[in-house]
Amino acid sequence: MQKKVWESPLFWPAQLKGNTLWVIDETLLPGRLVYVKVRNTKQAVACIRQMKTRAFGQFLVVLNTFLLVLDKNKKSSPKVLLKVLQKTATALNASRPTFPFSEVTAMVVGWAHQAVAQKKDLVGFLCQNINGFLMGIRIRRLQRVEQIASVIQDKETILTHCNVSGELAMAARICKAQRKTVRFFATETRPYFQGAKLTCWELKLAGADVTLVADNAVGLLLRGNKINRVIVGSDRSCANGDIANKIGTYQIAVLAKEFGIPFHALTQPSKKIARGEDIPIEIRDPEELLSFSGKKVVSPGVEGFYPGFDVVPHELITQPIAINVN
Amino acid sequence: MQKKVWESPLFWPAQLKGNTLWVIDETLLPGRLVYVKVRNTKQAVACIRQMKTRAFGQFLVVLNTFLLVLDKNKKSSPKVLLKVLQKTATALNASRPTFPFSEVTAMVVGWAHQAVAQKKDLVGFLCQNINGFLMGIRIRRLQRVEQIASVIQDKETILTHCNVSGELAMAARICKAQRKTVRFFATETRPYFQGAKLTCWELKLAGADVTLVADNAVGLLLRGNKINRVIVGSDRSCANGDIANKIGTYQIAVLAKEFGIPFHALTQPSKKIARGEDIPIEIRDPEELLSFSGKKVVSPGVEGFYPGFDVVPHELITQPIAINVN
Repeated sequence: MQKKVWESPLFWPAQLKGNTLWVIDETLLPGRLVYVKVRNTKQAVACIRQMKTRAFGQFLVVLNTFLLVLDKNKKSSPKVLLKVLQKTATALNASRPTFPFSEVTAMVVGWAHQAVAQKKDLVGFLCQNINGFLMGIRIRRLQRVEQIASVIQDKETILTHCNVSGELAMAARICKAQRKTVRFFATETRPYFQGAKLTCWELKLAGADVTLVADNAVGLLLRGNKINRVIVGSDRSCANGDIANKIGTYQIAVLAKEFGIPFHALTQPSKKIARGEDIPIEIRDPEELLSFSGKKVVSPGVEGFYPGFDVVPHELITQPIAINVN
Repeated sequence: MQKKVWESPLFWPAQLKGNTLWVIDETLLPGRLVYVKVRNTKQAVACIRQMKTRAFGQFLVVLNTFLLVLDKNKKSSPKVLLKVLQKTATALNASRPTFPFSEVTAMVVGWAHQAVAQKKDLVGFLCQNINGFLMGIRIRRLQRVEQIASVIQDKETILTHCNVSGELAMAARICKAQRKTVRFFATETRPYFQGAKLTCWELKLAGADVTLVADNAVGLLLRGNKINRVIVGSDRSCANGDIANKIGTYQIAVLAKEFGIPFHALTQPSKKIARGEDIPIEIRDPEELLSFSGKKVVSPGVEGFYPGFDVVPHELITQPIAINVN
């Protein structure tokens, strides 16, 4: 029997129990681990819009919202159900316009039309497809965790940036079980502090040794032979191997190359975007930079420029750690 | 008659009036421009230790404290005065152990011994020397401001990091008078936010166009052809041209070189340190990184690594803008 792998709460930050989706409120981490209740589309949209969840969590909320809606409307006619599903998709797509939720929602709505055309049990077919799809992702992400652990060698120090939704922390736990001594450095990841608030928290939960650095200390760390390997996530992957990830990833990749330090990105190969230049970079509200905890940190008239992501060309990626899509 | 140059408050952040030294409390910027009173050595040490002043301001406080002490003890015998001056030097040296205040205090104490040996009027000789020394620095810094302005070309966008105590803002004002259109980007400069709080504030006072970016957006900015030139200060300069400056300067220099963007450092040539490797890097209290406004941002057990400075080797400095030491 396979030993159960320890799971970081951020690996699967939304859990469906009955007619309630429990979602980790990441804005309260690392102080408190609180799950908020999501029972309908409106609450799902609010949860995403208020950034209580992000990254993989958003994706889980989007898919699970369809399960909530199906449960609530299971006695409706296929015609009514199709309308409700389309309305749900539209609302979710608009929750954060810069995220490509439409790829996921269009898939679900497509399944619904397929079921109707093939005269299948609409609710049953959709639930099966969504749950099967989620299970497939779960298995492939668990495989990727194993891959990360096998890339990390004994006595290495790993630098990471932003947060990779549980996978690095779980790999750290596996390394520990394999008796590898591994240390981690995490960047703060301004302005949202995902590194400080999420990555440090879950690496600590995993029992790992983790040190926080400011985003501007990366050059000194890499030059000083303190880092053996960089491992980051990716929000989008391109057909040519370029990736987009949290702002700051690009400069870490350039610096890693300068010092010959292996740079790994966790990717999910996709043919939908040809290359990095084709990825639209989300320019976020500069207020997120100009204020802190609601208090302005700069004087009036100072502008802010806050690109949410940057692109790492494939030449800078020593070795992707890809999810298996076959 | 020469036209009076506009002066940033940070260019000369401590002013002696009568028996009171008025020092800008930089911890209250950019919200309020408040000068705190320093009347004796104890208050001077507190002002430095609490980081109400920093960089060039600390240097001004150290030298002016001797003027305060001389004024208070002007009727004492040379023997008593020498003792008082030595005590003052010792207290100032201990105010922030990592700063080389002793170079400055030893110079003043040396002058005092010279005056006694040569039977000069101790108080008069010292006041003249200290004031003359400060005046010399003032003139050379004003010359460097002109040099910065002449380096910056029309329609350029300049990236800066941390804060250079008024000189860049004053150069921006000169550029404006010369009808050059210049834009500035300033990094936040974590964890103290000197870029956000001081540099943006004084560039805005100078009437300049300034945009704040996170420290991790530098790579994207430089890659995107948004920056024509980088200008930073330096806390220490070495005989071989290496410099030490606020943490983050090094990685900006590496990235600037990657994109062939001129990188300038404001330097004060010195033969005291041979090369960058010889500069001890101050490792500051990690709490400054792990907490924000007194509130912990990470979970218990997470460590922090906060090097205050890093070293830029001279190969990465396209052109220093040096203070004239002759």
